[in-house]
Amino acid sequence: MAGDRPLLSNRASSEISNDRDLAEEDALLTGQPTARSDSRPWRFWREIGLFIWAVVATAAVVILAVVYQKHADPQAGGGDAKPSGKRNLIFMVSDGMGPTSLSLTRSFTQFANGQAWSKQLAIDQHMIGQSRTRSTSSLITDSAAGATAFSCALKSYNGAISVLPNHEPCGTILEAAKKAGYMTGLVVTTRITDATPACFAAHVNMRGEEDRIAEQMVGDYPLGRVVDLMLGGGRCHFLPNTTEDSCREDGKDVVALAKKNGFNYASSRKDFDALKGGKNIKLPLLGLFAETDIPYEVDRRNENDIYPSLDEMAQAAMTALSEATKDSEKGFFLMIEGSRIDHAGHHNDPVAQVHEVLAYDKAFSSVLRFLKDDPTEGVMVSTSDHETGGLATARQLHPTYPDYVWYPGPLSNATHSSERLTLLYQTFLSSTPPPSEPATADFITNLLSSGLGIHDASDSEISNLVHTPETAQYQFADAISRRSQTGWSTHGHSAADVNIYTSDPEKTKALQGNHENTEVGDFLREYLGVDVESVTKELREKGTGLMAAGKGGKSVSWMGPLPGEGERLDGQDHLAQYTGDHKRKRGVYCDHAH
Amino acid sequence: MAGDRPLLSNRASSEISNDRDLAEEDALLTGQPTARSDSRPWRFWREIGLFIWAVVATAAVVILAVVYQKHADPQAGGGDAKPSGKRNLIFMVSDGMGPTSLSLTRSFTQFANGQAWSKQLAIDQHMIGQSRTRSTSSLITDSAAGATAFSCALKSYNGAISVLPNHEPCGTILEAAKKAGYMTGLVVTTRITDATPACFAAHVNMRGEEDRIAEQMVGDYPLGRVVDLMLGGGRCHFLPNTTEDSCREDGKDVVALAKKNGFNYASSRKDFDALKGGKNIKLPLLGLFAETDIPYEVDRRNENDIYPSLDEMAQAAMTALSEATKDSEKGFFLMIEGSRIDHAGHHNDPVAQVHEVLAYDKAFSSVLRFLKDDPTEGVMVSTSDHETGGLATARQLHPTYPDYVWYPGPLSNATHSSERLTLLYQTFLSSTPPPSEPATADFITNLLSSGLGIHDASDSEISNLVHTPETAQYQFADAISRRSQTGWSTHGHSAADVNIYTSDPEKTKALQGNHENTEVGDFLREYLGVDVESVTKELREKGTGLMAAGKGGKSVSWMGPLPGEGERLDGQDHLAQYTGDHKRKRGVYCDHAH
Repeated sequence: MAGDRPLLSNRASSEISNDRDLAEEDALLTGQPTARSDSRPWRFWREIGLFIWAVVATAAVVILAVVYQKHADPQAGGGDAKPSGKRNLIFMVSDGMGPTSLSLTRSFTQFANGQAWSKQLAIDQHMIGQSRTRSTSSLITDSAAGATAFSCALKSYNGAISVLPNHEPCGTILEAAKKAGYMTGLVVTTRITDATPACFAAHVNMRGEEDRIAEQMVGDYPLGRVVDLMLGGGRCHFLPNTTEDSCREDGKDVVALAKKNGFNYASSRKDFDALKGGKNIKLPLLGLFAETDIPYEVDRRNENDIYPSLDEMAQAAMTALSEATKDSEKGFFLMIEGSRIDHAGHHNDPVAQVHEVLAYDKAFSSVLRFLKDDPTEGVMVSTSDHETGGLATARQLHPTYPDYVWYPGPLSNATHSSERLTLLYQTFLSSTPPPSEPATADFITNLLSSGLGIHDASDSEISNLVHTPETAQYQFADAISRRSQTGWSTHGHSAADVNIYTSDPEKTKALQGNHENTEVGDFLREYLGVDVESVTKELREKGTGLMAAGKGGKSVSWMGPLPGEGERLDGQDHLAQYTGDHKRKRGVYCDHAH
Repeated sequence: MAGDRPLLSNRASSEISNDRDLAEEDALLTGQPTARSDSRPWRFWREIGLFIWAVVATAAVVILAVVYQKHADPQAGGGDAKPSGKRNLIFMVSDGMGPTSLSLTRSFTQFANGQAWSKQLAIDQHMIGQSRTRSTSSLITDSAAGATAFSCALKSYNGAISVLPNHEPCGTILEAAKKAGYMTGLVVTTRITDATPACFAAHVNMRGEEDRIAEQMVGDYPLGRVVDLMLGGGRCHFLPNTTEDSCREDGKDVVALAKKNGFNYASSRKDFDALKGGKNIKLPLLGLFAETDIPYEVDRRNENDIYPSLDEMAQAAMTALSEATKDSEKGFFLMIEGSRIDHAGHHNDPVAQVHEVLAYDKAFSSVLRFLKDDPTEGVMVSTSDHETGGLATARQLHPTYPDYVWYPGPLSNATHSSERLTLLYQTFLSSTPPPSEPATADFITNLLSSGLGIHDASDSEISNLVHTPETAQYQFADAISRRSQTGWSTHGHSAADVNIYTSDPEKTKALQGNHENTEVGDFLREYLGVDVESVTKELREKGTGLMAAGKGGKSVSWMGPLPGEGERLDGQDHLAQYTGDHKRKRGVYCDHAH
């Protein structure tokens, strides 16, 4: 019997406090009377010592094994291919931010704040790799194909909103997360119907179909409602064209549709404030705080009573989603986009750009803080869909060999974006009676001085602005780009690799180094452990033969019409839209024509 | 006494084979007669069990602790702050290669070889972070300040060759490695006296002093000879100006000086071949295989019988240094520079650039292979000193909004650099009698077709080349840049962050993420565990009052004259030099003037 007894099975070290008890137990076990001889203490203590040693060594094995396991497999409890624990995933997209946007913004910040050159942005401290960005249709992607690579983890053509080159829909990480029981959110500073957010909760063949995207995002599509929280701009696509602020082509009231599908609705700063930083959010919520884009941060900061900031919206979203999932076995998936870094690149406006990147950096810091404080396991990955503008922190102004200089000073003298100055100029020009040429020249001189800190405008700069107001936006941006010696190669996108950042290099080891953008998408689904394929299957099954209203009363596929042969899909409409008027604008000012 | 006895100190488990011995030992220890009762087996086996358990657990602790230590501290046996083992350090510099050079070259290679978009360059698979590059004098560094950040791990002004802003010399990683018993080498494709290599083994106040640098590098300076192996170009600075191939201002024979200091000398492809890939190198060796720069790889590949490639030189250097240190307690420090990636950026020549990057990538692969095969512990770090050209893989050619396209095709049709075509054109123009205008136009038409694969040159392109031959190089480069829609913002450098690569992310953890370029220098000295400070001290002590010959027979500091107020130091001479003539050239063709 004694031999079968597990060694030490009932002897915790704390119990070994009574020699007499132990001796009696020994006697019972061995069937011998206790013999309190002098030998007892040695044998006893030797056995106790052996026991303690064994227990301590075993404890050390257990501790070391656990610690080692954590180190050797950084994804343990974090990013297993088959995760089990509750977890939150925050995916941040810095639209159009190439690597050079960081050196631009960092040097600007150091200059503006008198910081040492070693002072980094918050995001700088979390870089782990780069992403390659090409689409199936070009070496240079647009935001639609770029976001489809993230949402579906598949390459597609420029203009594709989570559909593949064969025009079949592909399930997205957000849809799969919702199906798996996660809460879901989208936060942007552009239209919520723009390519990047659309790719997570809509499927259309051409990104320009923003009216259709709005309907799908509030649940009018095969999967029903999949987004719990949307914060951003783009209200005009949700309002019927019978109302003044609408940009829809039809009379549908998508806000009413959203409400029918259960959404609460917020549409003003007052509404946003009532959400109390997210603590008072009742999901689902549709929050649309601007007619189209939320103004550039450089302008918005003076209109904080009208528009919430990216950081405010991001914080509200994290607070609300955390609260809403606190009793759930699943966490949440949240996409946060610094949408207008891209626009600043399109505008070749370094002033707008540095403030957009700083706004993104602030939201980035808030996400880090949230992940640190929130009890739920979580991770954040941040990357860009592409570079915009071919930005260079250097510019040769003359045929002679250039000095090696780039000046952040002119950027810190400027207080407004070229977009805002153009709006002011357009308003001035539309006054009645039309202003005289000298009055216009005075107005421009004052605008350059008060808005851009440019007090040395040349006669030809002023004359060009007076006589070609249709390209004023690019002239304003060029004036500041030249003075800071900031270079741009295009008003479009480029094929440069973009940086990847993370809250936790260990959990995101799969993204260290240089990766295809679809690998970012792979990581997202693997971290959440969700089944995107079954969503794709469901979409295709439910979508087969499903039709929706098209132009001219014609019925089209629920994903909208197919692009025509050679049709531009890569965001030109997008550009025309955010330049402030809603007419298609082809005569874009060329930087190089100067 | 029994209590003092270490538990189990003399009981290996193999010894516990005899109950009787054990019982007697027990008796001896306890002073009690052995009592072979029935209780003996239980107590005995319990104790044996305890003992075995304790030993096994302890062994597990030891094993786990060792394994964990290896994992938790990847530098154990690799990159300790205070390393003890023999080790090799290979530092690769991709001069002027910004992040976009990689997307340019990768897409070109995929296109030219019909590869999938997932096909990476070798270097792509080893990215770990980025480096910030500013100097003390500008946000945009030159190669001199950039290399000083690596060699001395200190910031200095543009133009400084391992001297500080106060014009004191700073000890370098190469000098300290030599003092510590390592063998040392420098491999470049430009002049061995150019800024990057110079910063490792010379100290001058202005980088333009290449004659002085040549003397110092062969040992004519306070520390004596510190470099064991130099392979590259720049022979003209070592030959007295009494010889035809010299570019020295004086009559010093620096090759003779080198030989006096023990150097063997190689100066031709025949000499290089005789080195048998490094197996037949007798150190120290000075190998100068071109008068100035070794031609761009795109041209050199057809002149392989005249010039060795970067990869050939790198392999020879590794073989020779490994062999020379095989019986040493120390390994070697080798710097390998892809020097002319920078020149291709200055020339805004995407054809030259992609082939330079590919040549670097090939050498990079050879270094990886060497480190894998060589028995000595070692690591390679690769980074750039700065970006050159403000390169963008996108270019807006017209005022209308650009298509999202970048075309590698035109680069793969081209067979020569703009530099080489310019040389051919200059040679043609210098024929006697001077060629007629129509003959020149024919020549240009043929040159564009045969050298750049351009068969659709416009009349104005040909006319411009015929009438402004002084800017022909930039016109050739622009013709190919426009056709591929490759953008450039400057012929100079930019302030973009540059990528960091490594052979081993674990050993180079200190460089993961975003770092100041001086932190790369910190890593180099820490990996080798060498005392750079004492070299600085020695340089200053020995250099105090030490004078050398200056211009006009005047005596100057051994580090050469100080720069004058406002004097350009950042490589303009450098540019003039590599454009093919030795005259200072100010009228550089401006891309933007087109």
